[in-house]
Amino acid sequence: MYKENLIEVHQKIKPYIHNTPVLSSKLLNEIVGAKLYFKCENFQKMGAFKMRGATNAILKLSKFQRSKGVVTHSSGNFAQALSLAAQSIGIKAYIVMPSNAAKIKKEGVIGYGGILIECPPTLKAREAAANNIKDTIGATFLHPSNDIDVILGQGTAAKELLEEQPNLDAIFAPVGGGGLIAGTALAANYFGENCKVYGGEPFEVDDAYRSLKSGFIESNKTNNTIADGLKTQLGDKNFPIIQEGVDRIIRVTEKEIVEAMRLIWERLKIVCESSCAVALAALIKEKESFYGLEVGIIISGGNVDLNNLPFDLF
Amino acid sequence: MYKENLIEVHQKIKPYIHNTPVLSSKLLNEIVGAKLYFKCENFQKMGAFKMRGATNAILKLSKFQRSKGVVTHSSGNFAQALSLAAQSIGIKAYIVMPSNAAKIKKEGVIGYGGILIECPPTLKAREAAANNIKDTIGATFLHPSNDIDVILGQGTAAKELLEEQPNLDAIFAPVGGGGLIAGTALAANYFGENCKVYGGEPFEVDDAYRSLKSGFIESNKTNNTIADGLKTQLGDKNFPIIQEGVDRIIRVTEKEIVEAMRLIWERLKIVCESSCAVALAALIKEKESFYGLEVGIIISGGNVDLNNLPFDLF
Repeated sequence: MYKENLIEVHQKIKPYIHNTPVLSSKLLNEIVGAKLYFKCENFQKMGAFKMRGATNAILKLSKFQRSKGVVTHSSGNFAQALSLAAQSIGIKAYIVMPSNAAKIKKEGVIGYGGILIECPPTLKAREAAANNIKDTIGATFLHPSNDIDVILGQGTAAKELLEEQPNLDAIFAPVGGGGLIAGTALAANYFGENCKVYGGEPFEVDDAYRSLKSGFIESNKTNNTIADGLKTQLGDKNFPIIQEGVDRIIRVTEKEIVEAMRLIWERLKIVCESSCAVALAALIKEKESFYGLEVGIIISGGNVDLNNLPFDLF
Repeated sequence: MYKENLIEVHQKIKPYIHNTPVLSSKLLNEIVGAKLYFKCENFQKMGAFKMRGATNAILKLSKFQRSKGVVTHSSGNFAQALSLAAQSIGIKAYIVMPSNAAKIKKEGVIGYGGILIECPPTLKAREAAANNIKDTIGATFLHPSNDIDVILGQGTAAKELLEEQPNLDAIFAPVGGGGLIAGTALAANYFGENCKVYGGEPFEVDDAYRSLKSGFIESNKTNNTIADGLKTQLGDKNFPIIQEGVDRIIRVTEKEIVEAMRLIWERLKIVCESSCAVALAALIKEKESFYGLEVGIIISGGNVDLNNLPFDLF
């Protein structure tokens, strides 16, 4: 039902995003026993796929809505993406961030022209601050992952990947708030040839894995993971799409995440976030099931703190 | 005098190397005030430009010479490059390495099919071990940088860059043993339109800077640099080419190297060696002279030890 929308969305956001390169590595193919194609959204504008969804969500607003600006609360890439997308389109973005968010993320928001509002580091405080801006200024609230326009935007990464590699048997993506994996599932369904979608998730934040088992949106009981982009939970907009379109979610340990991240950095020679490595780690964990197949992997982002790398953890 | 050779060399080595991508970054352009084009030899086979020269040097050998194999002493990328090039062409490569060389480099040599011979960590011991293999086995000794076939091979990186960006006003490359900068100077001279070549060198190993001043090949008095690929000195084959074709060499501090490396990792999202960052650091140091120009930068390699990164040094 969203096929035409995805085509239209992709056409509309093209002037604002990069068609990112797809990399491969002979040695990684040998390690996994499959032909791997890495869709490098770390090379996307502002360094992550979130630029796609943020751009589309803003482009969908009316002229009146745009005049009032947009607001979100996020401690991650969506904050920077919304700031840059708003700047590119010429509107205001109000970004609520917890006061303990990484300095590099705060600087990113300001650097991309976002208006930074700091709040205490609780979900309640974040929601209150965002609501306040919505009510007083009239800015439209945009959710980082539980919004169909955001989901469709994120899906354009897999759409581009399938345009370059139409015979993929599978695509792996990390699962955080669910926007990327839901968009990927839609794109694989519409533009792939029997292309299945798999999610990678840390054991420490396995809400999506448990949600698919129970049929209800579950919360995380722990969140002690280095994949800090994946600590968020699914929402009512993306969960049904994930239930319908994702084959299964594979959980990985923190050590497996770091090992996969090291492979990406050492072999592909690219800088990626630990969250991206979760997708490769999931594939490696069940590589026997993918022997000889063509597999796409979404490298979701590359915004890392170089002073705080995990390579010496294990 | 080498123009036809460079064209022929490039043609011959093409099946064995990648035409590596050229990346750019709006933000880095803004920081420097010029249009920058990064030739990403970190994406080259085995992770560095050395693959080009090693391949060409082997292809130049006679059938009889090839049957006896090749030998070199190197603690760096040339060892791995010669191993992989020899494996691709189907001959033996004997690699003499100091016993204290990084484990990752030793594993690289073995992984690429090279025959590793360890020796005490002195230049004398290295030369003796290599000579022994030359004399007893009859293998041809190949020098990592002071060999015209190696120099021509390295020059193909700049040739490719100029084919993609023919209007470059300048190309920056790091200066170690002199093979890359000499090859770059030849390519810029033959295939550029008034394209000047600049070398970047750490103050700690500024032998090339001093050699150009004095007119004689100078040695390094210190070598306490994180750019460990640049500790070698110029040779009689590459020095005259550098004297003729390199505009000047710009020296940088260790802090400037780390800052430039951070910019490359954070902004281009690629993994590169500290040696590569020396070229960007040199450009940044004298950026006023390059305002508004189109500047190429050779990212020479991406083989780094992720457990030993310099970002926390300053």
